[in-house]
Formats: sequence, structure tokens, C-alpha cells
Amino acid sequence: MSAVERRLSMLSSKLSIFLRRFSVTASKTANLNIGGIYPPIATPFDPSENIDYGKLNENLKVWEAIPFRGYVVQGSNAETAYLKLDEKVNIVKHVRENVPSEKLVIAGSGCESTKETVESCQRMSEVGADAVLVRNPCFYKGSMTDKALIQHYRTVADNCDIPVILYSVPANTGLELPENVIVELSSHQNIIGLKDSGGDITKLAGLAFRTSKNNFQLLAGSASFLLPSYVVGCVGGVCALANILGQACCDLEKLFKEGKFEEAKLLQQRLVAPNQAITKRFGIAGLKSGMDMFGLYGGPTRTPILPLENSQIELLREAFKNSNFI
Amino acid sequence: MSAVERRLSMLSSKLSIFLRRFSVTASKTANLNIGGIYPPIATPFDPSENIDYGKLNENLKVWEAIPFRGYVVQGSNAETAYLKLDEKVNIVKHVRENVPSEKLVIAGSGCESTKETVESCQRMSEVGADAVLVRNPCFYKGSMTDKALIQHYRTVADNCDIPVILYSVPANTGLELPENVIVELSSHQNIIGLKDSGGDITKLAGLAFRTSKNNFQLLAGSASFLLPSYVVGCVGGVCALANILGQACCDLEKLFKEGKFEEAKLLQQRLVAPNQAITKRFGIAGLKSGMDMFGLYGGPTRTPILPLENSQIELLREAFKNSNFI
Amino acid sequence: MSAVERRLSMLSSKLSIFLRRFSVTASKTANLNIGGIYPPIATPFDPSENIDYGKLNENLKVWEAIPFRGYVVQGSNAETAYLKLDEKVNIVKHVRENVPSEKLVIAGSGCESTKETVESCQRMSEVGADAVLVRNPCFYKGSMTDKALIQHYRTVADNCDIPVILYSVPANTGLELPENVIVELSSHQNIIGLKDSGGDITKLAGLAFRTSKNNFQLLAGSASFLLPSYVVGCVGGVCALANILGQACCDLEKLFKEGKFEEAKLLQQRLVAPNQAITKRFGIAGLKSGMDMFGLYGGPTRTPILPLENSQIELLREAFKNSNFI
Amino acid sequence: MSAVERRLSMLSSKLSIFLRRFSVTASKTANLNIGGIYPPIATPFDPSENIDYGKLNENLKVWEAIPFRGYVVQGSNAETAYLKLDEKVNIVKHVRENVPSEKLVIAGSGCESTKETVESCQRMSEVGADAVLVRNPCFYKGSMTDKALIQHYRTVADNCDIPVILYSVPANTGLELPENVIVELSSHQNIIGLKDSGGDITKLAGLAFRTSKNNFQLLAGSASFLLPSYVVGCVGGVCALANILGQACCDLEKLFKEGKFEEAKLLQQRLVAPNQAITKRFGIAGLKSGMDMFGLYGGPTRTPILPLENSQIELLREAFKNSNFI
Repeated sequence: MSAVERRLSMLSSKLSIFLRRFSVTASKTANLNIGGIYPPIATPFDPSENIDYGKLNENLKVWEAIPFRGYVVQGSNAETAYLKLDEKVNIVKHVRENVPSEKLVIAGSGCESTKETVESCQRMSEVGADAVLVRNPCFYKGSMTDKALIQHYRTVADNCDIPVILYSVPANTGLELPENVIVELSSHQNIIGLKDSGGDITKLAGLAFRTSKNNFQLLAGSASFLLPSYVVGCVGGVCALANILGQACCDLEKLFKEGKFEEAKLLQQRLVAPNQAITKRFGIAGLKSGMDMFGLYGGPTRTPILPLENSQIELLREAFKNSNFI
Repeated sequence: MSAVERRLSMLSSKLSIFLRRFSVTASKTANLNIGGIYPPIATPFDPSENIDYGKLNENLKVWEAIPFRGYVVQGSNAETAYLKLDEKVNIVKHVRENVPSEKLVIAGSGCESTKETVESCQRMSEVGADAVLVRNPCFYKGSMTDKALIQHYRTVADNCDIPVILYSVPANTGLELPENVIVELSSHQNIIGLKDSGGDITKLAGLAFRTSKNNFQLLAGSASFLLPSYVVGCVGGVCALANILGQACCDLEKLFKEGKFEEAKLLQQRLVAPNQAITKRFGIAGLKSGMDMFGLYGGPTRTPILPLENSQIELLREAFKNSNFI
Repeated sequence: MSAVERRLSMLSSKLSIFLRRFSVTASKTANLNIGGIYPPIATPFDPSENIDYGKLNENLKVWEAIPFRGYVVQGSNAETAYLKLDEKVNIVKHVRENVPSEKLVIAGSGCESTKETVESCQRMSEVGADAVLVRNPCFYKGSMTDKALIQHYRTVADNCDIPVILYSVPANTGLELPENVIVELSSHQNIIGLKDSGGDITKLAGLAFRTSKNNFQLLAGSASFLLPSYVVGCVGGVCALANILGQACCDLEKLFKEGKFEEAKLLQQRLVAPNQAITKRFGIAGLKSGMDMFGLYGGPTRTPILPLENSQIELLREAFKNSNFI
Repeated sequence: MSAVERRLSMLSSKLSIFLRRFSVTASKTANLNIGGIYPPIATPFDPSENIDYGKLNENLKVWEAIPFRGYVVQGSNAETAYLKLDEKVNIVKHVRENVPSEKLVIAGSGCESTKETVESCQRMSEVGADAVLVRNPCFYKGSMTDKALIQHYRTVADNCDIPVILYSVPANTGLELPENVIVELSSHQNIIGLKDSGGDITKLAGLAFRTSKNNFQLLAGSASFLLPSYVVGCVGGVCALANILGQACCDLEKLFKEGKFEEAKLLQQRLVAPNQAITKRFGIAGLKSGMDMFGLYGGPTRTPILPLENSQIELLREAFKNSNFI
């Protein structure tokens, strides 16, 4: 890219951010429709554990061929807990600049303190994120009462100029965001939805019922329970597996919408084992190995997460094979 | 009922049991189709904590108007842990004699030791149960390895002349029956299915996939996740809530089978809060209060379970009201 | 033993039971001093899983050479969950008849329902138990509120003519008996103490403080934390390991009482690994293997508990070896 | 303080840091004796949530009258998860400069990624910390295998020029540092000990035994189990309660060392309820309220942690009162 081209590209990106912001603030934030499938994209590192933007671009090129609603950047499986704020913001900025403006960019920006979370959201907004995904604070579990969580999220949402999406991910936080907290927050005009990765389908069905008057959008946090989530009232899914099998995830959405439940059932059943392999069973190292296996760039993890051993890679491959994805 | 009538009724009941047994043993046990909705019926006690068979009959009369596939007798919410074996067997016998033979009677008969479980299954078979529902042993959690559980269930199934249904109910046992154990056991010719009350829809979808070649039938263990369970491959549900809202549970099944997913979604959403109220939130005392509320006989619990306080009864009523069932 | 000898032995045993009962009821039940070390004895089975009283006698002979305060019969590691009530009662009777009357016999008699627990305690009292050890009901965890537990134990204690000892064993029940419940019950005149197997030393120290005015005696439920328990105010221990290393457990008590803390520390440290091996790690099969290893009769377990594999026996041996007990 | 005085004070502090570093590197790091009592000091904030160094100085003045071995700065209850690295480092620097050089300053410096943890330790070393206290990474729980944790800590210890103390605090991290990992790491020459806040006294006794040849020092992580910890082989304690009742904590240590076990027992028993109140029950807000109650500066917390309500403050006061500390 020549210097002129780069400057033009930057200008165009800034313009596009400005226009998006303008259109958002002009309407009610709560009108942002987030229904659809998103990969919570993995962060590509080079062998020195530095972010590899070239590889990120290669992955984005692959993903752009898939009818995603957008991208979740700095979800849990982005190794976001191992990134500095500047790194996180830069990746969001980079993605925003490199995908078409009709694709949503949702930026993970939950921190432990309320103040840092507010700052982080602000930064994400400045680089063009369409919404922020805010996982609950969790280190001081015993102090995270309903009241504390509600006040935290209200402060964040009040001080954020883009919509806020709640995020419950108990496998990482050790703390399931309570149903009553979510219902209470669903009436806030700048809190537009929830990504729930806990996998409790009863909770999702109950939430759909209890928030039905608040224009509150529920996203399944995993491909493992994507179809059941749609069936009880969710509008989309943020699926680690969509990094690898994005088309299959979008197919499942389509089958559901077209009412083809027999086919949808079979596809959902096939997705479980591969998805469990790249989440619960082998974690982020498994996700990245799987990406390598399917022609994307997974690459190394940051330590302390260790790469898979060869025997584990074989088990991972088997999971995809048994489900006929290889 | 005159003495002659009673004798005739007993004779007819014995004959019917004989004929059912004959037809079962003549075919492969695994052919028993258990698809459909079942209430795991509560045990009615009189004020002295004795079983009240008259009240049981009254309840059965109500339930017989509902298109259930059958009855689960001695499920967890029958206060089965508070009943002696003779009591359990007598209740099963009583139900078998008082419902039409086309209604299945599935008898809970899991005990801690393998030997007692075998005996218990035999007793249930003798009084005409169509299948036994066997929860896993749990007191010595640390010793319940996959191997121990597999050997336990194989011994039980080998020594039982009616089909065996596995039963995982971690809220009571503190031990989720592991997926690999279930898959391994699904190939046994006398183990025909699983009732899973854990509520992990991912597990159910994965099991449906992994047992698909073994003619293995999955039942959802709760109305809270009945529709999602159907959607991922279950064939029915054993729902505490069906004691109270049996018709609604059967309606949900029907909507699913007819492909009316929008209506099914709304009904499923409405069922969650009432069901949580009579299970997790208020337990068996809640279930019985709910039955009283809806014109069935709930009556007292056995101690140490305490009856609901008035304030709790109001909250219970509210749960049904908010979902428009009152 | 000739018929005459047997008759004489029975007569003498009945007389001794009568005399003990008389002395207990004459004084305040709460005066029974339960301080000291007890093995919660394993139940010896023959290869057909029947109780082997001959082997039990052989074990008792070994144990009688050790300065135990008495025996806990039908503790959790007696496979008590796999025994019928008659079996449990007979074993208690047998032990009572075969150990000197100055040795206490404490009988496990907790059941799920209040009614069965009362009956079970009565039976134990009739065959000469000095006190009953009553684990909390646990199957309906969600319904075991503080209020339910308190009413349960009060009813049991009110209807039992020998003293009641509370018993919290969360590894089996999945339910830690709450501190407030224990404190509340400690003022009941027929509830004289607690065996706590949970291992939370903070709880024990807090209980010692909060029950100090109620003449309430605390027993550690494991050799793993015996010394720390004494140090915070416990008066003894019921230690699975005392089946095998009874003398060492009594030595530890003695070192504590003589103020030899350096030696006590070293002995306590050595006890941990062997004790963990026969409890958490390998369970009752480990305990029985360890008994076999040390010249007692361990023998087979009842299924579904499986015997140790050879490799596990080697690991078990190593645990004793590393602590210099072999 | 005049400008000249301040300059002199700074010079002297720098010199003292230099001298301490020199003496440390000249000897084997593992020779640092960390036995004794430490308060893990709370971080004083002004009403705008900024660090209030003046108040910190006032607290330090109170604490300096107590025979602590030193200070833990940036332990969990310092709201360390809500502080930026620069803030954390500055507080450590400030404490180092304001307490006598014979008092140890142990700096909390665990982060999620290995790289950030190394950097953080380096920063703490540069400002004069005597040792670092490194809690395990926890966000990606599923990936924190024994192997990953061992490699993480080895890398940290290899790259740190002051001694490393492991830190297990499952109430915050949701992840107990496994015993085998600790034993494995105890042989590393720059890993000199463990602070364990989990409260599992069996684990501590077992660790004392298994690490006895490695010159590895164990610190109890709470006043709730300080005496039991000493008795099984710990050399000191890091006690939140020492922020408030520092003298009592040191008295307990003294009673233990002088073999006054009866008095020690009573004091330990009294410490439990107040300590539980300022940790498990009311958390950091409780700790700070307690400090205010006893004439130290507690002050506000950072959000999302909320201040205690008045009714909670009364319960807190009661806990201290019941134990005769008020």
C-alpha cells in the first residue's frame, strides 16, 4: 500500500466511523438490531506473542465470505485477559477499518472496576465499535451483589455513547449474571441485550419471557445450544465455533428461520462435539489448533495458555471428523 | 365397591399385567416406545403422613382426562426417598390397577446398592410396571467412577425383565450421570432410554447424536426445557409441572409436532416460572401447594420437608399468575 | 462356643445393656463424655457380599489393644448406605456384645425421613448403643432449609432415649450442616455434640466458641485435621484411618494432651497422605485394601463400589510408605 | 515537611532500597525468612476514589506500633483488581519508603498473562519490594492445567530478582492452586513460599510434609485458621484482620511460640467471627468499615464494590462485640 493509499484509507475509515456514530445518536440506541451470527474472533499472535495484523487480515478475508451479522472483538476467547487496553482498542479499530460498515463490530470492554470499564467502553466507541459487550466484574465475587452489579452496569451504560450488551460467561468469571439483575437492567435504554455463555436454556427462556416488553435482545454464547436458544426466543449467537465453521453456524440460523427443524436438529447435533472440543475441552489452544486445521490462522497462544500436544490435536481432529466436518 | 366387584377388578388387573408382560417379553424390550409426556406423580399423604390412596384416585381421575403417555411413579418428587420399599411398590401397583393398560407406568426404583436396586426393579416388574427408571447411586460420590456406574447399570439391566431407563437428577444426587457412561450403556438391549433432569441442553443434543444408532430414547426431565429438548432430539418429557398443568405440557408437545414454533415458543416461555417455582424454588412443598391451588390433592409432605409458609404460597400463586395460568 | 456359653454370653450382654441404659437415664444425657478417638469401623463382607461376623470379631480383637474411646458403627465408611436396617442394627448389637462396656458404641442412624430416623435411633438404642450419630437428610437438598433441619433434629432428639450426635459429611451428602443450625441445636439437652467431616477448621473453631456454654462436644471427622481440631477446641476424632493406624491416631491425641507440639506436628503431617488415600482418593475400597495391607480384614466391598485395581493398590502402599508407616 | 527534608527522605529511601537489593542478591534468595504476621493492607481512597497517601501514612503510623514482620501490599483485599499498575507500584514504593527497612514489604504482583506478571514483578522489585506475592492466573480456568501453572510460575521466578511467594486465593480466583503444582514449584530456588487463603488445613499439613526438604515457607492466608496453621507447620500469617486487630494476631503468634495453647485456643476462637465478618460475609467494604470503627482510616471502596449499609455495619460491630474486641 502506498502512503497515499494508506492516508486515503484512514480518511475513509474515519469518515465511516463518523457517519455511523451520527446515525446511531440520531436514532434511539436501543434500535440497533443485533440479530444474527458472530464469531468472537481469536487474536492472532506471531511466535513472539505479538499481535499479527497481517494474519488477522487473512482471517477476515475468509470470514467476509460468510453471512455473519458482524464480529465480536475482544470476547473471552480473544485471550482478552492477556491483552493491554491499547492492544484491545487497536484490534477493534483494525477490524472496524477492514470490514464493510454494514457488518457490526461489537467490542468486549468489561473490566473489574466501574471506572476502568467506563474508560474502556469510551475507547471502543472512539474507534468505531457499534456496541460494547461488557462481562461482569468477578474478582470480588462475594461483593458482587445484585445491587452492586446493577449500579455498575447502569453507570457504564449511562456513560457510554454506544449501546451496551451484558455478558455472562461463568466458565471464566465463576459468576453467573443473575436473572433478576438482567431483567432489572433490560429496561435501561442503552442496554440492548445479553450474550449468555452459561448454557442454561431455562434461564434464556425465562429471560425472553420476562424481558419481552423491553426490546431486549438475547444472544446465545455458544454453538452448542444455538438452535435451542433460537427456539426459546434468542435472536442470534456469538459462537467460538464460527471462527472455524462459520458457514455451518449461519446455515443453522437459516434452517431455523425457514422452519426446517428436522435438518436443523441434525446440524445442531453435529455441532456439539466440535464446539465442546474448542471450548470446554481444549480451550483457546483448541480453538486455534482448529483454525489451523481448517486453513485459517490460529497460531500460538499467549502464555500461560499452552499449545495443544499432538495427542490432543488428534482428539480435536476426531471430534470434527465424527461430525463429518472433515 | 362390593366384594365381588373388587375381586373381579383384581382378577382383571392381574390378567392385564400378565398380558402386558407377555407382549413385552415376546418382542425385544427395546421396542417399547416411551415418547410422550408423563407427570412424575406426587405421593398424597394424609395428615398423619400415611399414603392416601383415595386422594391418589381422585388425582388419577383428573389426569386421565389428559393425553399423557403414562405415569412416572416414584420419581424424585414423589418423596420417594421418604418411602419404604413396600410403600413404593404398593403405589406403583395401585396406579397400574387404576389406569388403562395403554397408559405406561414407569416405576422409579434406583437404590444405593446394586443388589437392592435389582430387588427393587424386580418388585416393580411384578406389580406390572412397564419400565423402571433407575437413578444413579450417589452417596459414595467419590467411588462412582464411570466403570462403577457402568457395571452397576449393566447388572441391573441384565437382571430386570422389563426395560430400564437411566435417570440423572443432579439437584438431588449431587452427581450428573456422565455422558460417556450414558453412551456406553445405550447399546445394552434392555436399557432403552434416559430421563435427564440436569437441564444441560448441550448434553442432550450431544447424547442424541452419539446414541442415534442405538434406538435410545431421551426424555427431558422438566417442563422448563421441554421444547428445546424436543428440538434437539428428545422424544418426550417427565415434567413435575404436568401434575398441575398437564394439558399445557401436552399442548407444547403437540405444537412442536405440528411445527407451530411461534406458539410453542410462547407457551414454553410461560412454563418456565411456574415450573421453577414448584421445583428449584419451593421444591416438593411447592409442587403440592400448586396442586392444591389447581384443584388436585397436594396435601402435606413428609418431614423433614416443611409445608410452604403463606408468603411463599403467595409467591407461588404469582408465578402462575404472571404466566397467565391463573 | 458351646450352646451354654452362648446363652451365658447373651445373658451377660443383655444385663450389661440394661445396666448401661439405667445409668444413662439416671443422669443427664448430656453428661456422656465422648472425648477420644474412634474408628468408624468398616463392615466386613464375605465374597458373596454378606456380613462376615467372624472377620469382624478378628478386627475387634486387634482394635481392642488400642486405647480407643469406643467405636463408631454405621458411620459413612461402613458402606452403611448399602445395608438394610436389620443389618445395621445387628452389627451394632454384635459390636456392643463383643467389646467391653467401658468402650462407647456410637451408632450411625441418620435416614432421609424424620420418621425413619426416629425408628432407626430407637432400634440402635434397644441393642445397646451409647449414642446415635445422625447425618443430615440430603436427597432433597433444596428443601433442607435451616428451619427444616432444626425441626428434624429436634424431633429425633426428643424421641430418642440415648444422646444424639449431629453429623455433617458433605463429601457424601453434598450438604454441609450449616453453622447456625448446629449452634441452635447445641442447646438441646439430648444433642451432645457434632462429628464434622467437612474439614473446615474455621467452622470448627467458630463452633467451639459459639457453643461453649452448651456443654457441646466437637469431634473431628478425619485424621487429616485431627491435631488442628484439638487445638481449636475439639475433644476427639472419628477417623477412618483409625481402622488401620489406630495407635498412631491415639498417639497424636496423647502428644496433644501432653503438650508435645513439635512431635504432634510431625505425626499429623505424616498422617495426611495415608488418610487422603483411604478417603478422598480411593474411598472405601482404599480403606479396605489398606486394612488388608496391615493385617486386618478389609475384604470386598458391596457393589457398585469396585475393588481397587493393582496399580491403585501400589499407589496406596506408596502413600503409607512415604509417611514411614510401612 | 520542608522541601529539603523531603529530598533527604527520598535520598535515604533510595539508598536503603539499594542496600537491601545488594544484600539480597549477594545471598541466596531462598534465605529470606518470611515467618511472622502481616496485614495485607487496605488501599485508602478519598471520596473521589483516588488513593489517599496521607491516610495511608496515618494507618502506617498505627501499624508501626505492632510487631508485624512486615506488610503485604497489593494483596487481594487492597482492591488490587481495581488499581492500575502504576497505582499499585506507587503504593508499594510509598510503603517501602515509609516503614523501617527491617520490615518486609511483600508486593502482590500476579497478573493474568505470564508476560505482564513478569513485568509487574520487575516493577515491584525496582521500587524496593522484598518479595513478590503472585496469585495464579484464573480467567481461563479450563486451560490452567498443572503444566501451564508450573511453566507460568517458573518463568516468573526465573525472571524476577527478588523471591517469589505463591498465592492461592480461591474465593477470588475460583481456582485452588493444586497441591502437586505447589510441591513441584517448591524446589525452585527463587520460589520461597506460599500464602494459602483457601483454608484447607489438610492441604497445609500435607504441603508442610511434602515440601519439608525444600526450605519452603507456608503462610496462612487468614486469621480464621492462624493457630491451626502454625500447629501443622506454617511460619506465619497474612491476615486481613491484622489491618484492624494487628496486636491480637501477633499475640496469637506469641502464645503459640511460647506453648500457651489454652490461651491461644481461646484467642483463636474469638478471632473467627470478626474475621469472617470482614472477609466472607461483608468483604472489603466490611474490612474498611471495621477499620473506621477501630480508629484507622477505612474510607470508601472503589465501585462496583458498595459501602456497607447501616444494618450491616451493626452486624459487623456485633461480631467484634460478641468476641469482646469492643
